[in-house]
Amino acid sequence: MQPRVLNVECPDRVGLVHAITGVLLAESLNIVGNQEFVDRSAKRFFMRTEIEGSFDESRALEKLRATLGPDAIIQLPSLAPKRVILFASKEHHCVADLLVRHMFSELHCEILAVISNHETLRPLVERFDIPFHFVPSAVADRTRHEQQILDLLAPYQIDFLVLAKYMRILSADFVRRFERRIVNIHHSFLPAFIGARPYQQAYDRGVKVIGATAHFVTDALDQGPIIVQQVIPVDHSHSPQDLSAAGRDVEQIVLARALKLVFEDRVFLCANRTILFD
Amino acid sequence: MQPRVLNVECPDRVGLVHAITGVLLAESLNIVGNQEFVDRSAKRFFMRTEIEGSFDESRALEKLRATLGPDAIIQLPSLAPKRVILFASKEHHCVADLLVRHMFSELHCEILAVISNHETLRPLVERFDIPFHFVPSAVADRTRHEQQILDLLAPYQIDFLVLAKYMRILSADFVRRFERRIVNIHHSFLPAFIGARPYQQAYDRGVKVIGATAHFVTDALDQGPIIVQQVIPVDHSHSPQDLSAAGRDVEQIVLARALKLVFEDRVFLCANRTILFD
Amino acid sequence: MQPRVLNVECPDRVGLVHAITGVLLAESLNIVGNQEFVDRSAKRFFMRTEIEGSFDESRALEKLRATLGPDAIIQLPSLAPKRVILFASKEHHCVADLLVRHMFSELHCEILAVISNHETLRPLVERFDIPFHFVPSAVADRTRHEQQILDLLAPYQIDFLVLAKYMRILSADFVRRFERRIVNIHHSFLPAFIGARPYQQAYDRGVKVIGATAHFVTDALDQGPIIVQQVIPVDHSHSPQDLSAAGRDVEQIVLARALKLVFEDRVFLCANRTILFD
Amino acid sequence: MQPRVLNVECPDRVGLVHAITGVLLAESLNIVGNQEFVDRSAKRFFMRTEIEGSFDESRALEKLRATLGPDAIIQLPSLAPKRVILFASKEHHCVADLLVRHMFSELHCEILAVISNHETLRPLVERFDIPFHFVPSAVADRTRHEQQILDLLAPYQIDFLVLAKYMRILSADFVRRFERRIVNIHHSFLPAFIGARPYQQAYDRGVKVIGATAHFVTDALDQGPIIVQQVIPVDHSHSPQDLSAAGRDVEQIVLARALKLVFEDRVFLCANRTILFD
Repeated sequence: MQPRVLNVECPDRVGLVHAITGVLLAESLNIVGNQEFVDRSAKRFFMRTEIEGSFDESRALEKLRATLGPDAIIQLPSLAPKRVILFASKEHHCVADLLVRHMFSELHCEILAVISNHETLRPLVERFDIPFHFVPSAVADRTRHEQQILDLLAPYQIDFLVLAKYMRILSADFVRRFERRIVNIHHSFLPAFIGARPYQQAYDRGVKVIGATAHFVTDALDQGPIIVQQVIPVDHSHSPQDLSAAGRDVEQIVLARALKLVFEDRVFLCANRTILFD
Repeated sequence: MQPRVLNVECPDRVGLVHAITGVLLAESLNIVGNQEFVDRSAKRFFMRTEIEGSFDESRALEKLRATLGPDAIIQLPSLAPKRVILFASKEHHCVADLLVRHMFSELHCEILAVISNHETLRPLVERFDIPFHFVPSAVADRTRHEQQILDLLAPYQIDFLVLAKYMRILSADFVRRFERRIVNIHHSFLPAFIGARPYQQAYDRGVKVIGATAHFVTDALDQGPIIVQQVIPVDHSHSPQDLSAAGRDVEQIVLARALKLVFEDRVFLCANRTILFD
Repeated sequence: MQPRVLNVECPDRVGLVHAITGVLLAESLNIVGNQEFVDRSAKRFFMRTEIEGSFDESRALEKLRATLGPDAIIQLPSLAPKRVILFASKEHHCVADLLVRHMFSELHCEILAVISNHETLRPLVERFDIPFHFVPSAVADRTRHEQQILDLLAPYQIDFLVLAKYMRILSADFVRRFERRIVNIHHSFLPAFIGARPYQQAYDRGVKVIGATAHFVTDALDQGPIIVQQVIPVDHSHSPQDLSAAGRDVEQIVLARALKLVFEDRVFLCANRTILFD
Repeated sequence: MQPRVLNVECPDRVGLVHAITGVLLAESLNIVGNQEFVDRSAKRFFMRTEIEGSFDESRALEKLRATLGPDAIIQLPSLAPKRVILFASKEHHCVADLLVRHMFSELHCEILAVISNHETLRPLVERFDIPFHFVPSAVADRTRHEQQILDLLAPYQIDFLVLAKYMRILSADFVRRFERRIVNIHHSFLPAFIGARPYQQAYDRGVKVIGATAHFVTDALDQGPIIVQQVIPVDHSHSPQDLSAAGRDVEQIVLARALKLVFEDRVFLCANRTILFD
């Protein structure tokens, strides 16, 4: 049986681990994994615990709240896979990778649909029996385009939106509706090469390493908390097109790793940093 | 003030974290870092805690022993740097790197002396005002050679021996005297290329990646528990000499990282595997 | 227009580059890329040239043969994509990755069919409209099983066989029919962990890095020339199953990179080593 | 005997390799290594050749000039080690690494002296019998400080200046005197974290990878052509101090690799990019 996850976040003080494990012990719960971190500058405590055993959820949560006080954020996520919508444009590699992993249950999520501002990926997506929604962006202004997307999203109960190489910038309004629930893959090693055409920028600068960054989306472009980054070496023989091709493999790996962490409730936020219990 | 380290290792059971943190709390000790791991196959619990505050060491240890029972291994290492002897042959890079780090207090150790079966490194070592002992291996049989080394070691109080590219195999007898206290750097990605001339072996096999391995020495050649491994890419243009040169940078980094972990009491052993609390 | 590739391999001697480029210049061919390598130990010369312009192929080849003598291996591969059959067992990741790359023309090949000793991957493969042939291995002896495969392969004109996590060992007889034309992905950093269950072997040995190796298949198990290798770091918290999951991403990338090199005629062999003009 | 290097750079046109190798062949020179690159966007040809044999240098250079025309840059560097001055501030790791490599002739250079705006590293440098010049920066204005340095440099015949963690910005005037002859190590993955305190910047941004960049110094801060870059993974548990410590190992490796390439005449410049013949 899969263990349950208990995530706790609160101001740091002496005795927290002892207190929390005490509640779990009193419920006869077995701790099969436990990770803590204290952010010294923010004076904040983070803990992710994997527990086994049957227990009265409400009572356990109530005890924890009583023990930890009103400042604590206590989460006991359900075992259900996260409900997810993918956003894409013309590039296939991240979407294809996620569809394959989804088909073989490698990610703890259910992909409900793919939304795109192009028709390019319809044949790919439909091969996997996932609904494909084309919402053209060329003809509509941004507000209207986003409203069409919101209308489309309305009937789904969504946990996360995943921007799998979606080449449109979402408005601050849109982003705020899904705070901490939008994950994007950016095709550079942030904060290098923010904005458009990062591979061309990388070529012009003559870098010897390129990378990709998966991050939460906030209303500041490419500034949200970073979840996963990875790089690969390149050299003078790479054209911007070569850099882009080489980058694709990194992008899809980085996005898949980030989503695995997010969907398994392994990611905390502290200021603009993520804490990963891997 | 530098925190103290408490290391605990025992058979796994419910409530260990709660019990141990309870003892520390009762001593009014502040936990500033805490890492646990349970090896599921060995059913063994490992915990490294960093604590701050003044306390009665004997009383705390006694309470922990009473709480955890006789099977537990409980360690509260002193804050003193580890006392270390380096062994080397002709190659300078690992020894030089360790001497520099030692000079600038980057490693939690005191290098007491360097022992070598060649005179080659004497000028380097003496630049750093470290005693250099030449124990020629060519003329003596192994037993006698090792006895000369043991005689040399006798006056020092030694915590660890570090084989920093020492190209002689130590006898099982010798190794057993320093169980879990000898760290070696092997110039390959073990278990590939055990034994002599690993770079020539790597060249002949046509590998595309070479590496280095720092491990504890046991009486089985190159079979001891691995502490750190790292690799670098190579290609067809590398001769065996090029591989060897490229490998040197990896060797010295791998050895320095392993020693940092060992000297800061961050390494546990479980069967033939190491558990690193990094 | 895509440039043509000219590959030359011969005993090394003075003046080869000048002689070969002279022939190309006389044919008014433009050299848009050029890579040479001399294996000093084998005293062998390797050159891959990318040329643009229309020319009389037979005449150019004749001149090159006259210039270089009978010991030279001169190849001017057609621009047609390589014709390829994938072999698989139960694991999907490498096959899925290759099917996606194939669908989007990222590999210079045509995947003609997938052959498997299990039915597991039929639904995946058929989504991509590629023929799937199930050849059960459980009931037949190896000779008979391989004969069934050979019968299946007969109607196809095949350039390469790709073992994309095919968990059966092919007989020396079978391998010899496709010399230098079978590429395998092995789920370890060869020569470490030859043979079965490499991730369990890696776990038992307590390695800190795992990897994957794409290589040509010869009749010596896991001993063929290595094309691409890559590794990822792991730690004590990885169970054998975790190692296996972590390894899958590396395996699929390593195999895809190796196939890109092979299908673009970028791989030469020298003794048991590959020379890659990347 | 060590081979000579011939470096050629000129506008691209048909027949260059044939023409250059023709001149070498006529001089009965044996080509033991040869690398070419054409920058398609700049339409520029680069070639590095290693040659063996005795020859009339002036005649060969004259023939090459006649063949390639006045636009070609043709270099036949002497076999003498490059003459180098190191600049440093308080951090020891890069200077120490270079002093050790210098002592064991691993870099093709002669370190003539170390100049520093602090006394910190004098004991280290003097252990290696290298002159140490202290030029205090606190009391002087920049112009005067740089004039003092220039006065110090005057008697030396210098090929390269190496900024081995020199924490002062050199004026445009100073830099222009040593065009393409100053190499700096920057403690970030450029163009991320330009300017001061890159590790603090990296911490604040919450990156998951940090790096180092060796580059030629131009009068635009941290904008010069990049020679070598490398990164290492980090996580939320790294404080800015931890990032800085982790970064040191990368910095010293990156600088040593860049210097090896530069001192062996393996680096060409094309716009703001380097071409490395490795």
